[in-house]
Amino acid sequence: WKGEFFPGIPNIKYEGPSSKNPLAYKWYNAQEEILGKKMKDWLRFSVAFWHTFRGTGGDPFGGATKFWPWEDGTNSLAMAKRRMRANFEFLKKLGVDRWCFHDRDIAPDGKTLEESNANLDEVVALAKELQGTEIRPLWGTAQLFVHPRYMHGAATSPEVAVYAYAAAQVKKAMEVTHYLGGENYVFWGGREGYQTLLNTDMGRELDHLARFLEAAVAYKKKIGFNGTLLIEPKPQEPTKHQYDWDVATTANFLQKYGLFGEFKINVECNHATLSGHSCHHELETARLHGLLGNIDANTGDPQIGWDTDQFLTDIGEATMVMISVVRNGGLAPGGFNFDAKLRRESTDVEDLFIAHIGGMDTLARGLRNVAKLIEDGSLNDLVKKRYESFDTEFGAQIEAGKVDFESLEKKAMAWGEPKVPSAKQELAEMIFQSAL
Amino acid sequence: WKGEFFPGIPNIKYEGPSSKNPLAYKWYNAQEEILGKKMKDWLRFSVAFWHTFRGTGGDPFGGATKFWPWEDGTNSLAMAKRRMRANFEFLKKLGVDRWCFHDRDIAPDGKTLEESNANLDEVVALAKELQGTEIRPLWGTAQLFVHPRYMHGAATSPEVAVYAYAAAQVKKAMEVTHYLGGENYVFWGGREGYQTLLNTDMGRELDHLARFLEAAVAYKKKIGFNGTLLIEPKPQEPTKHQYDWDVATTANFLQKYGLFGEFKINVECNHATLSGHSCHHELETARLHGLLGNIDANTGDPQIGWDTDQFLTDIGEATMVMISVVRNGGLAPGGFNFDAKLRRESTDVEDLFIAHIGGMDTLARGLRNVAKLIEDGSLNDLVKKRYESFDTEFGAQIEAGKVDFESLEKKAMAWGEPKVPSAKQELAEMIFQSAL
Amino acid sequence: WKGEFFPGIPNIKYEGPSSKNPLAYKWYNAQEEILGKKMKDWLRFSVAFWHTFRGTGGDPFGGATKFWPWEDGTNSLAMAKRRMRANFEFLKKLGVDRWCFHDRDIAPDGKTLEESNANLDEVVALAKELQGTEIRPLWGTAQLFVHPRYMHGAATSPEVAVYAYAAAQVKKAMEVTHYLGGENYVFWGGREGYQTLLNTDMGRELDHLARFLEAAVAYKKKIGFNGTLLIEPKPQEPTKHQYDWDVATTANFLQKYGLFGEFKINVECNHATLSGHSCHHELETARLHGLLGNIDANTGDPQIGWDTDQFLTDIGEATMVMISVVRNGGLAPGGFNFDAKLRRESTDVEDLFIAHIGGMDTLARGLRNVAKLIEDGSLNDLVKKRYESFDTEFGAQIEAGKVDFESLEKKAMAWGEPKVPSAKQELAEMIFQSAL
Amino acid sequence: WKGEFFPGIPNIKYEGPSSKNPLAYKWYNAQEEILGKKMKDWLRFSVAFWHTFRGTGGDPFGGATKFWPWEDGTNSLAMAKRRMRANFEFLKKLGVDRWCFHDRDIAPDGKTLEESNANLDEVVALAKELQGTEIRPLWGTAQLFVHPRYMHGAATSPEVAVYAYAAAQVKKAMEVTHYLGGENYVFWGGREGYQTLLNTDMGRELDHLARFLEAAVAYKKKIGFNGTLLIEPKPQEPTKHQYDWDVATTANFLQKYGLFGEFKINVECNHATLSGHSCHHELETARLHGLLGNIDANTGDPQIGWDTDQFLTDIGEATMVMISVVRNGGLAPGGFNFDAKLRRESTDVEDLFIAHIGGMDTLARGLRNVAKLIEDGSLNDLVKKRYESFDTEFGAQIEAGKVDFESLEKKAMAWGEPKVPSAKQELAEMIFQSAL
Repeated sequence: WKGEFFPGIPNIKYEGPSSKNPLAYKWYNAQEEILGKKMKDWLRFSVAFWHTFRGTGGDPFGGATKFWPWEDGTNSLAMAKRRMRANFEFLKKLGVDRWCFHDRDIAPDGKTLEESNANLDEVVALAKELQGTEIRPLWGTAQLFVHPRYMHGAATSPEVAVYAYAAAQVKKAMEVTHYLGGENYVFWGGREGYQTLLNTDMGRELDHLARFLEAAVAYKKKIGFNGTLLIEPKPQEPTKHQYDWDVATTANFLQKYGLFGEFKINVECNHATLSGHSCHHELETARLHGLLGNIDANTGDPQIGWDTDQFLTDIGEATMVMISVVRNGGLAPGGFNFDAKLRRESTDVEDLFIAHIGGMDTLARGLRNVAKLIEDGSLNDLVKKRYESFDTEFGAQIEAGKVDFESLEKKAMAWGEPKVPSAKQELAEMIFQSAL
Repeated sequence: WKGEFFPGIPNIKYEGPSSKNPLAYKWYNAQEEILGKKMKDWLRFSVAFWHTFRGTGGDPFGGATKFWPWEDGTNSLAMAKRRMRANFEFLKKLGVDRWCFHDRDIAPDGKTLEESNANLDEVVALAKELQGTEIRPLWGTAQLFVHPRYMHGAATSPEVAVYAYAAAQVKKAMEVTHYLGGENYVFWGGREGYQTLLNTDMGRELDHLARFLEAAVAYKKKIGFNGTLLIEPKPQEPTKHQYDWDVATTANFLQKYGLFGEFKINVECNHATLSGHSCHHELETARLHGLLGNIDANTGDPQIGWDTDQFLTDIGEATMVMISVVRNGGLAPGGFNFDAKLRRESTDVEDLFIAHIGGMDTLARGLRNVAKLIEDGSLNDLVKKRYESFDTEFGAQIEAGKVDFESLEKKAMAWGEPKVPSAKQELAEMIFQSAL
Repeated sequence: WKGEFFPGIPNIKYEGPSSKNPLAYKWYNAQEEILGKKMKDWLRFSVAFWHTFRGTGGDPFGGATKFWPWEDGTNSLAMAKRRMRANFEFLKKLGVDRWCFHDRDIAPDGKTLEESNANLDEVVALAKELQGTEIRPLWGTAQLFVHPRYMHGAATSPEVAVYAYAAAQVKKAMEVTHYLGGENYVFWGGREGYQTLLNTDMGRELDHLARFLEAAVAYKKKIGFNGTLLIEPKPQEPTKHQYDWDVATTANFLQKYGLFGEFKINVECNHATLSGHSCHHELETARLHGLLGNIDANTGDPQIGWDTDQFLTDIGEATMVMISVVRNGGLAPGGFNFDAKLRRESTDVEDLFIAHIGGMDTLARGLRNVAKLIEDGSLNDLVKKRYESFDTEFGAQIEAGKVDFESLEKKAMAWGEPKVPSAKQELAEMIFQSAL
Repeated sequence: WKGEFFPGIPNIKYEGPSSKNPLAYKWYNAQEEILGKKMKDWLRFSVAFWHTFRGTGGDPFGGATKFWPWEDGTNSLAMAKRRMRANFEFLKKLGVDRWCFHDRDIAPDGKTLEESNANLDEVVALAKELQGTEIRPLWGTAQLFVHPRYMHGAATSPEVAVYAYAAAQVKKAMEVTHYLGGENYVFWGGREGYQTLLNTDMGRELDHLARFLEAAVAYKKKIGFNGTLLIEPKPQEPTKHQYDWDVATTANFLQKYGLFGEFKINVECNHATLSGHSCHHELETARLHGLLGNIDANTGDPQIGWDTDQFLTDIGEATMVMISVVRNGGLAPGGFNFDAKLRRESTDVEDLFIAHIGGMDTLARGLRNVAKLIEDGSLNDLVKKRYESFDTEFGAQIEAGKVDFESLEKKAMAWGEPKVPSAKQELAEMIFQSAL
């Protein structure tokens, strides 16, 4: 494969909201400063290697639909390297300097673990070279769900040999992430869960998962990897129940097993909604626990019960997401990874660009809207005012844990029936919408 | 009101599975021993005063449909006392010796807190007398969701005066539960949550909730109430999001705020399914945390997105529930409270009996099925066998947290590709069904 | 009650998008022409009397929260009249000239049908007077779901006496709608469905429903009422299954019973999403059947499984809705009825205005966006281009039903493997978002 | 491949409910007469070739897990024939004499349509021979969803060449179904729907679908195929919206396009629940339209939003299903096709047998329960009694469409407030459960 992978595609530039050019940014202007930071520093975008370069368009009812010109139909090492070069051309044309990968996305499985590791090393060496000084992995991870050995789980497999295999794979994936200068390492336990409790010892499996993560923390420290370890919750699919169901479930697990402080959370919006929450809820829950580490930026369909991994195009949702990010002071060393895929029926090479541009512009537009909301101030005032009765001396004492039930009863009797004002939800929604 | 409340209804007796008598037990035989305990001691049934005696059949689209002969259309103190007598006749005819109540179910709200408390004392005195030596509350609780003062929450209301009022109400409700010999006290935070995050300071509200529960624990100890404090999770309804979403969320909250050990959980099956879990999953999650304290025995409709609070009649589900209960060694001092209501369209007095008999028989049948499963042993063997590779020396070391990634990698390389046997889900389902 | 009902509230004016005044329109400019029609003629807004003037804020877990100053706590005839005057002041201040009502919203139930009818006549006479020459009902309807007599259904009740009662009530409601100059009459079968098939003869109930609607059509013609009869689908709630589940189900019913052509459909967005469809899908389905008659403009919460009846504030959704309306050439003689209610916690009189202004502005903004999309033209082109292979002679023959399987097979063999282009979904979403 | 495919597996025999043998029937006794027919004639079981012989265990997050000993890893014609022999050995050992297939399941795709047809002919010739006199296809169908040419739909593809290709494929599949003595032919429109309305002309696509089905009807008649044409509804997956959403939607389509009478419906239970209905509801809806033609016997998980295609093991659900089947007088010429698959993690050859035995026994148990319910009679009486007020002269006149609104109003006034009895849902549930 000689020359460009994306011959007709220019470097994507910012042209502003009135542009009709699908291959230009209308809202994302990397160097523009908003709320005291460059847009690129708020947004820290990353391309997901698996969706963008390994996504075939296959689904449970159909085979591949995408046949990119640079693919030769094999999963060879040579093909892996060619694909890696395509990845870096894509990143550069898009103007994005972070990428994410699973070990098995970027290099083919070998016949043995040793051979798989050797394959990985070879591709990683090329990636390191192609990265140059500008580009780094936002995070790496190990793919512990595709191979049949992981069908019952990896860290939670009932087979001790699978547990060991998974550990070996994570060890290696962590090493190469570190080598490439990755800033985070992710655990998504796609098969860590169950299909039915009838054949499952859930308690034992959860204990195993904790042991596995403990060992991962120890190894991270041993090799001097300073990146953040991230757990990515998802409620179900492919399992009936995944142990890292949502943010609260994950936080509970970390607390129960003494792992709190060692991990942060990678919130994926489509996973949030599948677990019955808005994405904003999950982000806020993570933030309030000090656990908001990264966002897998995508969205689902509100009437669909599986993970559609669509690029986010809803302005309101993007604005809610960015509210949490701004409150969090940004996501660094985490960022926004586009864990999103082209629809099965989108089969042009340019669709890869259009989809990413759309997703980036939507979040950029969300950020601009947050700036408007903050400047306007009235939504913030509305919330603050609602709680002002706790900004009193008595309120402060309650918040300090100094007021017992007897004192509260006395106050209640002294005060009589409380006055309870309107929650002004419709006004809040009006103000919010005005910023869109 | 003179004489019987339920004149045509006999004391309900056990007549065995072949009985066609709707007013007889076919599966529940209170004194019969199963798995080493009397059925009544495994099941510890309780009647919910609110559904059974205050349920009107009203729903969001319609008014009351139930006009019991003993009701005079008022919410007077005299009516409250008459209703209490009906309650005890109902319990005795059913052969159930536990009941559950909210403060405002059993006695009318007064114009002031003091008057409400006085009303409550008067009705409670009667209840104490009617209880005799046999009957006790399984639990009591405070109703903190009906009155408009609680529209924004009780412990999580933005109004400090509402917080105080709620504390006073819980204080009193705990006192009367203690006085009546209640074995548990329940917190269901129906309004502790939000309708929209746009007008909500979630972090501050959660802190307030923790302070409130801390004060409740302190007060419980102060008055010498030895009952268990129970939190009842529900994902949403009436709020968009309730803070005690499910068991894991509640366990997380307890850990975060240092309250673990002071509370157990009251799992309601319909709440479980609304949160995206099977009831059995929630029971097992609670059990594995040492938090399984009580069950609100009901069920929902799998295609309906709100709380229908139906009496459980599914034999398979009841068997799953009883598996958890038997593993837990029973629920005492908790039990099974029928937080279940007649359908709006069921308007005969005898329907109250039929519904409870159906629910009790279903759980009794579940218990009998568990005994069959245990006697048969093959389901248990199937599960045990799946994990036997961890019953080795190396497995034990892993479980003890003594095996690091390097050692695991060495093993993985030494062992080569793991052999992964079938999970035998269909066989497990076949064995399970054979016991029904 | 003397003087104004809404003393501090001015007539609501258009101030444009930059206005920060909650009591002004930012997007709805009634007289402004868009796409060849005045905004008021595209949008034909209507206020729902029940939510706005009879909504109490009650929900399944709590009592009333709204105590409007003009309410005296009774359901008297005098109160009904006072409330009606409030309604017209509200309409005038809002600048809306249509309203919708149920018979029992506007006048109290009497002890007999005759008395109820007399009450209704008295209030209707006042409404007629207050309407003047400008204001008319968009539609009227009969409330056949609140009273306990309707607990098993109205037209589908197993009780013949209930069927007759419902007919009498519809007869009267249709008469008064006609008298007031109403343009449509709505059937929402809130209780026409079942709670369980175990006690239901579904076939017989559906037959009864058809007979009832036939009689309604006959009566409409008899009295010379030229308004459109509308059926409003909803999947469930309060029933487990409502017979008018969604648009397709309703169209099927109309066809099966020979009623097609006599009814159109009133699509409610929150009902659409509860039935598993987007609102736009339901609108398009109705439109393609020639059945799109009216829109109940509201929205639900994507993670909530019951009818929340919120005011629509999502710009994207509003734009989709308006696409269907514009394709339909508008909705006249139907319109947009705000079947939406204040949140339970919104208790200020001004919230009634803010909520309506927000909903109206959102739809107006949607209409403006549709104009932008049409002017731009690229989305339309994209769709047209996708089907161009059917704009050929052979395509036309297929569409005319003239091509059999043998001919198609011959073509397929002659043509060889078809070329299938990208569906360009991400591009379509980008274009759509650019118009928001 | 020589000798047996399933060497350790005996012919499956009936051993009765007390048997603990996983490879025996406990409830299904083919020749036993129940309700006037042999069990085999009520149940008419069929094995689905695709799940049983082409299912790999792959899912959206993982590759194949099933590597049956007779598979050589190719999709060759030789392999197709070997697999077909395995199919017939499986059928015979199971004692099932019907099977279902897609064209592309049983024979490999060729490079051209002609080659594909030749492959199909070769395998079909073998199947014809192996069928002998006992075994026949319950139905055949064309696979119009796996190949990328169908990514936008088959009959509803925007590409005329795809429409033609699909027609050619259906033509051939219908021919081979006819040749093999198949009793039905199925249309499942897995890709006949849309991913987004933004790029879709829904009206035009629906018209194309109707034209396609018209041509199929004509061709069926032309070749003298007397089998039933069946449409199989599914709400979504893989599409966002499938045009044959549920039974009512499909009936509506058939009526709108004049196709009613030419098709019946194949109800799949898991599709029913995904569309928000119970399986029993869909069966009853089909039955009441005279459209109940076949059942794809499987079940889903009540908390999962995609098609899990599990074997049915719920006794209550099976009993509800069989109520509809018995009311329908059976399903012939349709039957029960096990459109159900082993869980991904079930990888033993014997699991194929265990799963089918479990599914067959469950439906057989359902049939036995229906017999008990009918013999008992009390559930039927309860329903009949509810409607007895329509079994009067006036009720009969209403049902005959002879009673107008004026007459009904007179009756309503004469009768006064109707008496409305209890719906006895809990009693109905108790009676139902007693039969399980």
